[in-house]
Amino acid sequence: MEKDPALRLRVFDLNCWAIRYLSKRRQERIRLIGDRLCREGFDLVLLQEIWSERDYSDLKAKLGGCCPFSHYFRSGVIGSGLCVFSKFPILDTLLYQYSLNGYPYMLQHGDWFCGKSVGLVVVRIAEITFNIYVTHLHAEYSREKDTYLPHRVVQAWELAQFIRHTARAADVVLLGGDLNMHPGDVGIRLLRGWTGLQDAYTEAKHFEGCEDGCTLTPNNCFTVKSELQPFPSGIRIDYILYKAISSFTVKCEELRTTTGTVPGMDIPYSDHEAVMARLCIQRRGQTAGVTIGTAMPALVEVLSEARTEVCMGLLTARRQRYSSGRMAVLAMLLLLLQVVGVLGVLGGLAAGKPFPALSFSLLAFLALAILLLAAGLHLFHSIEVKMLQGTKEQMEMVIRGLQEQPLHRH
Amino acid sequence: MEKDPALRLRVFDLNCWAIRYLSKRRQERIRLIGDRLCREGFDLVLLQEIWSERDYSDLKAKLGGCCPFSHYFRSGVIGSGLCVFSKFPILDTLLYQYSLNGYPYMLQHGDWFCGKSVGLVVVRIAEITFNIYVTHLHAEYSREKDTYLPHRVVQAWELAQFIRHTARAADVVLLGGDLNMHPGDVGIRLLRGWTGLQDAYTEAKHFEGCEDGCTLTPNNCFTVKSELQPFPSGIRIDYILYKAISSFTVKCEELRTTTGTVPGMDIPYSDHEAVMARLCIQRRGQTAGVTIGTAMPALVEVLSEARTEVCMGLLTARRQRYSSGRMAVLAMLLLLLQVVGVLGVLGGLAAGKPFPALSFSLLAFLALAILLLAAGLHLFHSIEVKMLQGTKEQMEMVIRGLQEQPLHRH
Repeated sequence: MEKDPALRLRVFDLNCWAIRYLSKRRQERIRLIGDRLCREGFDLVLLQEIWSERDYSDLKAKLGGCCPFSHYFRSGVIGSGLCVFSKFPILDTLLYQYSLNGYPYMLQHGDWFCGKSVGLVVVRIAEITFNIYVTHLHAEYSREKDTYLPHRVVQAWELAQFIRHTARAADVVLLGGDLNMHPGDVGIRLLRGWTGLQDAYTEAKHFEGCEDGCTLTPNNCFTVKSELQPFPSGIRIDYILYKAISSFTVKCEELRTTTGTVPGMDIPYSDHEAVMARLCIQRRGQTAGVTIGTAMPALVEVLSEARTEVCMGLLTARRQRYSSGRMAVLAMLLLLLQVVGVLGVLGGLAAGKPFPALSFSLLAFLALAILLLAAGLHLFHSIEVKMLQGTKEQMEMVIRGLQEQPLHRH
Repeated sequence: MEKDPALRLRVFDLNCWAIRYLSKRRQERIRLIGDRLCREGFDLVLLQEIWSERDYSDLKAKLGGCCPFSHYFRSGVIGSGLCVFSKFPILDTLLYQYSLNGYPYMLQHGDWFCGKSVGLVVVRIAEITFNIYVTHLHAEYSREKDTYLPHRVVQAWELAQFIRHTARAADVVLLGGDLNMHPGDVGIRLLRGWTGLQDAYTEAKHFEGCEDGCTLTPNNCFTVKSELQPFPSGIRIDYILYKAISSFTVKCEELRTTTGTVPGMDIPYSDHEAVMARLCIQRRGQTAGVTIGTAMPALVEVLSEARTEVCMGLLTARRQRYSSGRMAVLAMLLLLLQVVGVLGVLGGLAAGKPFPALSFSLLAFLALAILLLAAGLHLFHSIEVKMLQGTKEQMEMVIRGLQEQPLHRH
């Protein structure tokens, strides 16, 4: 104990809701977030929805004193929105973009354009290697009719796989982010079961903050109240998860959330509440074997459940691929008919009648537009089918592996 | 030595050139490849350009006896074209899609649609964990004016980063694939320097096959002779690379390539030659420290060189982003002018003259088409700029890290 004193690490996680032109009082809130981070001096700050590089630069300038090291993850059209600030040097980074992330034509939801990803930074503190992951999964716009569920399950699966494959040499794994899943949802159970990550909220010795650790609450003036109607005390969708891999133990000593408005102000930091954890990392006497989070039968069960969701998504995607393909074929036939018509006119078949050029060209324009749109959709849903199919097969391979050799872990 | 006999592993790698409707005598060649694989009984088979799932299924059915385990990597519109066959159970898989991969409007090159990726399969043989990677990088269509060089360098960088981050727990790393780079190219030096992978061809004790290990030769009846004119004996762009990570050593005892036509036939297996290696893996007495491939100053040099290529790409991408944006604005202005014109007509300003409806609607159609196209291009080049910028920053971070603490490796 005396030789290896415990390392205490203070982690801050927040979905900052900083969308240019759309988020209310954005710059003011970014300033407030920066002030708080400066005042409290966290060791690690994991932020999501920092869409503007300008906001990142502002934060970087402000945090230069307390968190001099930082990384902004770029991806997609708008970016990933993910960034990390650290008191300790960042040794390495890697970004993994999820293969599925909603639909480009759902403009009102816009997730597709964000290039949702998981970012990894490697940090070494007091001879301990930390793999720190930050991510933001696809939003849930309707819990009753959640059309994005299969995509979110695929993302949870890819997140788990990415962590499992990249964290092998780390001593401690940390994941922070807006997972857009309730604690009992299949995606969370899959992620936790397959990686062995623990939930800082449920493990915390001491908790202070919103009821049930909720991070999206009706008390927050920026949240959409109607969406939270079924959950009077709010929902918990922002997490700090952790795991010790080699001869270390991690404990969460304290977990806090912000509770609405910033002290002395009339607005909160974001439409989400921040999650703040104090972790205690200690070297163990002896190396424990690699453990996975969930007992084998339970893991097989959650994998099967996730597989079912992916299969449901596959059915829908195949149906959409088929109907967009059919639409494209119909538009093509219409265009062909028109070509035949024009050839007929040129051949003198309808010499007597005047040729309705304007309506004809408008119809051609319409057919062409439908053809392009339907072909694009067909292409998109073909990719979707491929990725869902691939995930389904991967899950089945893992389930088979677990059932065949339950004790063999590599 | 007696306790730990050497493990001998026979690896086969081939770019199969199996594009449906386009590749000549495809099904016949797939049959021939399957026959050879059955006859020779390789332990690991790494294939590229198996674009059709049907071809994969045919191979799978044929190889059921000698390589009962396999994985097909799905990605992009057409797929990744990558697959692996193995004599030993595949325990886990992961796919990483490169963030840049050519341009969607270069239809004649088509790389963009393929979702070029690196696939990882984890296999355990005789208590040794193998991380096996298979990949295919963007083609080089012109060596003099290689517009895809920055993209290929980004791919080589992402490949190296992916291997470094995922291979930490492996005992042996194997990479096979069509890297589309000559042995001295910056991308290969970057990949080898940053991962420590060794080239089976240069390390092989015994070599048999095409001159200089070339895998794209003028003797092959399917290659485009004009492209190979500056290289009379061909080029070497298909590789098997390897590395032992923990307490193992890997040696290449023998490397062979195919040499054109299949014995007894009038065609070769593909437009590429296959690379076949016999590797000898042995446990070392003591664990060696983690080494990287290239001495520090040389590594910094190759990283700087790669960074320069990425910067060149960044300049071009920014120029293209600007000009497509300008084009979109001009098309929008034209449309606006037309709207003003129509409003003028409706307002009775040009009451006397007949309204040229047909030419007017054709012009509007043209303006709209240009607007959509230019906006799409602008979006695409914005993503390109972001990814090149991100890669440049990552490289700079690594260069700084190497220069500041050359002895600190995590």
